[in-house]
Amino acid sequence: MIDTSTPEQCTARLADSARYRTALPRIVDELAASCRDGSGYEHLAPEPIPSREATIAIIHQARKIVFPGYFTPIRIDPSTLEYYLGHETANLHEMLSEQVILAVRHNCLRYHEACSHCEERGHEAALAVIGELPRLRRLLADDVRAALEGDPAAQSIDEVIFSYPGLFAITIYRLAHALWRRDVPLLPRMMTEYAHSKTGIDINPGARIGEYFFIDHGTGIVIGETTGIGDRVRIYQGVTLGALSLPRDAGSSCRDTKRHPTIEDDVIIYSGATILGGDTVIGARSVIGGNVWLTSSVPPDTKVLLKTPEQVHLQNRGQGPGDGRREMGDGRRN
Amino acid sequence: MIDTSTPEQCTARLADSARYRTALPRIVDELAASCRDGSGYEHLAPEPIPSREATIAIIHQARKIVFPGYFTPIRIDPSTLEYYLGHETANLHEMLSEQVILAVRHNCLRYHEACSHCEERGHEAALAVIGELPRLRRLLADDVRAALEGDPAAQSIDEVIFSYPGLFAITIYRLAHALWRRDVPLLPRMMTEYAHSKTGIDINPGARIGEYFFIDHGTGIVIGETTGIGDRVRIYQGVTLGALSLPRDAGSSCRDTKRHPTIEDDVIIYSGATILGGDTVIGARSVIGGNVWLTSSVPPDTKVLLKTPEQVHLQNRGQGPGDGRREMGDGRRN
Amino acid sequence: MIDTSTPEQCTARLADSARYRTALPRIVDELAASCRDGSGYEHLAPEPIPSREATIAIIHQARKIVFPGYFTPIRIDPSTLEYYLGHETANLHEMLSEQVILAVRHNCLRYHEACSHCEERGHEAALAVIGELPRLRRLLADDVRAALEGDPAAQSIDEVIFSYPGLFAITIYRLAHALWRRDVPLLPRMMTEYAHSKTGIDINPGARIGEYFFIDHGTGIVIGETTGIGDRVRIYQGVTLGALSLPRDAGSSCRDTKRHPTIEDDVIIYSGATILGGDTVIGARSVIGGNVWLTSSVPPDTKVLLKTPEQVHLQNRGQGPGDGRREMGDGRRN
Repeated sequence: MIDTSTPEQCTARLADSARYRTALPRIVDELAASCRDGSGYEHLAPEPIPSREATIAIIHQARKIVFPGYFTPIRIDPSTLEYYLGHETANLHEMLSEQVILAVRHNCLRYHEACSHCEERGHEAALAVIGELPRLRRLLADDVRAALEGDPAAQSIDEVIFSYPGLFAITIYRLAHALWRRDVPLLPRMMTEYAHSKTGIDINPGARIGEYFFIDHGTGIVIGETTGIGDRVRIYQGVTLGALSLPRDAGSSCRDTKRHPTIEDDVIIYSGATILGGDTVIGARSVIGGNVWLTSSVPPDTKVLLKTPEQVHLQNRGQGPGDGRREMGDGRRN
Repeated sequence: MIDTSTPEQCTARLADSARYRTALPRIVDELAASCRDGSGYEHLAPEPIPSREATIAIIHQARKIVFPGYFTPIRIDPSTLEYYLGHETANLHEMLSEQVILAVRHNCLRYHEACSHCEERGHEAALAVIGELPRLRRLLADDVRAALEGDPAAQSIDEVIFSYPGLFAITIYRLAHALWRRDVPLLPRMMTEYAHSKTGIDINPGARIGEYFFIDHGTGIVIGETTGIGDRVRIYQGVTLGALSLPRDAGSSCRDTKRHPTIEDDVIIYSGATILGGDTVIGARSVIGGNVWLTSSVPPDTKVLLKTPEQVHLQNRGQGPGDGRREMGDGRRN
Repeated sequence: MIDTSTPEQCTARLADSARYRTALPRIVDELAASCRDGSGYEHLAPEPIPSREATIAIIHQARKIVFPGYFTPIRIDPSTLEYYLGHETANLHEMLSEQVILAVRHNCLRYHEACSHCEERGHEAALAVIGELPRLRRLLADDVRAALEGDPAAQSIDEVIFSYPGLFAITIYRLAHALWRRDVPLLPRMMTEYAHSKTGIDINPGARIGEYFFIDHGTGIVIGETTGIGDRVRIYQGVTLGALSLPRDAGSSCRDTKRHPTIEDDVIIYSGATILGGDTVIGARSVIGGNVWLTSSVPPDTKVLLKTPEQVHLQNRGQGPGDGRREMGDGRRN
């Protein structure tokens, strides 16, 4: 890599390699020690752990089946459709059951449960999820229609399927939720966090979401674990469906309680709105305006708007270093 | 993969494979049926559809040409520059015209237009965009300078080119907009949504953006299809340049109307500000403060600031489960 | 690729290839000229520049060492631990010192400093960072515990390590900060911007962050270069720790001043809060509520809450095109 060496550089390299030869073993010993004294986290076991790469591969394999012909280099036509679907579905089943079994067994071992049924449970869960693919296909087709109707900038079905981050996140959520409903550990969250990473849309796999769901733009959306969402709901970027805060020590006690809101059918929630709390219900056909903050329920057919906050207009001239502080939207300087 | 098998596991595996052999054909038939009864979406055609991977490859290929030497393992020096540029540009033309032709023809077929000129149109568009690369290079150099001047944390031109998400998103937008101006379907949005996925910056390829544009941080920015932005404009994270809502049934009727604001030269828009509506014009040299919400025009040289909202200070002691509800920033518990 | 050609298409192709043959050389000459007249940016030098791919590979290699067994296909068990760690750490050192040397030398050359010690400095920095891995492992283990305690939806340590974007961003920040402290150019920011791209969490490598740090959801978080954060701090999505704006011409003058806030131990900052300014100090154990905007200090043990803004409730019936403007959360229409 390094092509030109002055004498100083040679000396430097020798000095360094000496330092290196003495330093490395000490560092490695320290690392190994921290794996044995429990001060760090590591997975040292004869049993393999699920693979993040394999989990992501499952997502893309499933997409090839729910939207045939969109995400494959090869061309599919009606005469070969069954062969394509049969082949890809068999592959998906194999990929999925392997990771599900790893996840189930890993969980068992970690918590010292009996393990003799891990594999069977894994196979059952995987097969059950495969069996839901036709239903998933129909659900996702409605989600595509919802996007096409909801967004005048949408130019075609193909554009929505190829490009819309909301559809991508919903596709992954629907798959992950199917695994979540069957108590498969680790994988559902790995899947939705993959969607989060790609889209900025953070949907917990435990959330319950109805048909014909449309997310526009999506960046910054958070949908919590116990959220319930009805049919034909629309949500825009930066919306949080979250939980009220709890005393610091509430910890795991609240794990199984409903902590996130319920959104009924045909509700629209505009960008930046925050809706919090397990008892909060947004009634059917209501509209929640941009940046609205809600911690209590809203009856059906209601429109909740934020009163426009007072704004100051100043002439921008002769701005000194002192003034205009309130203008900063931060970030200007980091 | 599975290395240790108890007798139970073997039985389980046998039982499962039996279930599987009977279940799979039914699932595949259902999937195939849903491809034929129009209940789902699929692309079954002798004509290939554009490829998302190939479209992303085009982006990275173009970057190697507009910023030579930054994104290539090989070293380039002045004596070999022409060879490098010639070779990479020829490759880009080939990659681009192939995908453009696929997109144009796919669109034709989908909408039953005449198709004999698809290929010619595709070639013309691809060549025209290639011809814009020198101009793109100059535009992007100004965008780099804008970042370097706008951000005290920027330590060098190299850092901006290597690392700044704003520059990445603007680079892709400028390329996608060149395709959009030539009515190339699918690809422009695929490109800007790739940028959105990588940066959280969602710029519709239809937006018109002037020179010397700087985006800082960028996550959560939304710039709508009919937005107009002048020269030397600065925008921070979380800014929305969006549309007013329309009656649910407005649907496609409003597709061709101007729905998004106009931002004149030298405007600064700080983080979290929301500016909506096709008739909204922000006059030259104005400054829009953080979190400001605007749905009407602002004259030139104006500074719009949010009046600091009232805030309550409480001693944090003896916090019971009941109080402090308003404190939650949500999310605390999902 | 193109399988069916009408006569028109052949003619078109010929016409195009003619156009192409004449157009390409002119385009390439223009591109080359713009590389020589200084109107654009390019890296033409015998010295290679650091590689973004290699820098990302370093991140993933370091993760394999700080969380052994989680991100490797192979199984590790206690008997082979030292071999695994020794091998992977030696690899990391080689990958890291190569890129550090490239970065240091590139910077030297760019600014015409003496260069004879670049390589030595690079080796020293790389080895010093490797030497910090055991400490990093302990720090990150505390970050994992903080996530497990802070999030009731967290189901296991494994889930946090596999899936939590906050932990991913913090891992990369802690590695990048170690390089930043040793004045390694380019690489630290390349690393944190990779995390930004994957998580929407933008932590400048210069920020100082204590132990037991928890970020939930994270999308949209901005933590500026001169921010200081104590121990056991929690931050939620959309929080900005930023700088006040400065006169347009402040430029680089303010580069070395403290521009971002100081957050003391045990502070919680809920989603969407914005805290700005280098003199702003949030006292220990304080709680900053959702969407709060702060540009001045807060004493210890204080809870700052936003007064719930007034909201209007309307019956949603008979919504005409004119009304309901304030409802739009934007984006509805782009």
